[in-house]
Amino acid sequence: MRIAAIVEYDGRAFSGWQRQDQQPTIQGCVEDALSTVADEPVAVVVAGRTDAGVHALGQVIHFDTGAERTAYSWVRGANSNLPDEIALLWAAETDSGFHARFSATGRHYRYVILNRAIRPTYLAGRVTHEHRTLDVERMREASRHLVGTHDFTSFRSIECEAKSPVRELRALDINRDGEFVEIHAYANAFLHHMVRNLAGVLITIGAGDEEPDWARTVLEARDRREGGATAPANGLYLSHIEYPSSFSIPRLSSTRFLW
Amino acid sequence: MRIAAIVEYDGRAFSGWQRQDQQPTIQGCVEDALSTVADEPVAVVVAGRTDAGVHALGQVIHFDTGAERTAYSWVRGANSNLPDEIALLWAAETDSGFHARFSATGRHYRYVILNRAIRPTYLAGRVTHEHRTLDVERMREASRHLVGTHDFTSFRSIECEAKSPVRELRALDINRDGEFVEIHAYANAFLHHMVRNLAGVLITIGAGDEEPDWARTVLEARDRREGGATAPANGLYLSHIEYPSSFSIPRLSSTRFLW
Repeated sequence: MRIAAIVEYDGRAFSGWQRQDQQPTIQGCVEDALSTVADEPVAVVVAGRTDAGVHALGQVIHFDTGAERTAYSWVRGANSNLPDEIALLWAAETDSGFHARFSATGRHYRYVILNRAIRPTYLAGRVTHEHRTLDVERMREASRHLVGTHDFTSFRSIECEAKSPVRELRALDINRDGEFVEIHAYANAFLHHMVRNLAGVLITIGAGDEEPDWARTVLEARDRREGGATAPANGLYLSHIEYPSSFSIPRLSSTRFLW
Repeated sequence: MRIAAIVEYDGRAFSGWQRQDQQPTIQGCVEDALSTVADEPVAVVVAGRTDAGVHALGQVIHFDTGAERTAYSWVRGANSNLPDEIALLWAAETDSGFHARFSATGRHYRYVILNRAIRPTYLAGRVTHEHRTLDVERMREASRHLVGTHDFTSFRSIECEAKSPVRELRALDINRDGEFVEIHAYANAFLHHMVRNLAGVLITIGAGDEEPDWARTVLEARDRREGGATAPANGLYLSHIEYPSSFSIPRLSSTRFLW
């Protein structure tokens, strides 16, 4: 049978999602934990491979197994075998046609910037720190050049293995709340480093180093070398993956953390 | 001259505020950093000594020094000599009549509970986890028995050294936002463990183990043994200290962290 699950993690302690020899990875931890629960080897397929240091609030996986367990047993069993930084939030048997990656119709990422003169303390590793005051209006103006279906070659890393550089960026919203600036990026799918490269351009423009029109210049160049710096992994959260409603993958409560 | 400063810290790595031999403490780190900047020994006075594991968004200190430094130099110099988990957010020369502890007229604490079945991941050590669903209305009903000027003997630890157990609890607000329940406690001053003991009673009532009236029973007992469990330090943040406006201690932006 096929099981779908939602995974939350703090990416700081890991060399990204994908299993590697000799390096702690989220895939490695999740597969080991599920294999213990199943009492047989389990291989998982993930919706979005995240890089080292990137966090997830709502990563989605699927795996096939012959082990018969209740949904509650998968969640509780996995969590008691996972390190503190990783937890399954939900699991359920799903249609055999469900595929965590290929069934996904949309991906949401959040990029969180602590925008103040002083470095973060209790948020170290979980936000990107920018000491220059960001002008959110300039960032919004820039974002209007980027939303839409475009060739995002300028925003993909040179290691990106995707066949096509065309993506439909459905939303690129920027909001300030006190010292925090948050970028919400929503697309059908993202290229490698695309959110961090979008954030890098928006931060450069928000800080006043480039004009909002520069976003269009970068986009139209179709050349990564024109795109400036890749923003750090610290502030990036994979927040939600969308699927056709027939698969009944829940959208877990989108939390706003109040101080 | 007398300098006032605001300090933010992640309490996880420290054995509380107060300096101890052989243990990492926030006071020890702050005094060592300021002594390096001043090039002479600096002793600091703190508004509110926090226990091991308790965090601060707006702790206030003062210290006397003969060293002449700009406000910017105190902040930048201290921060480059402090560990990642601690930062000075602000500093300025202040009136010699200012005293971080005795001039304070009000203290604000926030107690943050992650209220879901699954343990925290990226918020481990920074929130208190409660898997039972908390009924915020019941907690609010209980809080109405506690707000006001009372003898809070039932809510002070047996190690509390305060002369009087009477405190003016000006507000005890409870709010839910998605999976988070936040308690905001505001008083002229707090007894040792008072916020954690208030949180313990509210969580017990919110989870349905006691009725809202139990808060009054505990209060009137004037006996710590009647007060139930002390809630963990993980979720506790010293958020703001109030002073007479003549001292010009700023209220830094109260941030709401969005997901």
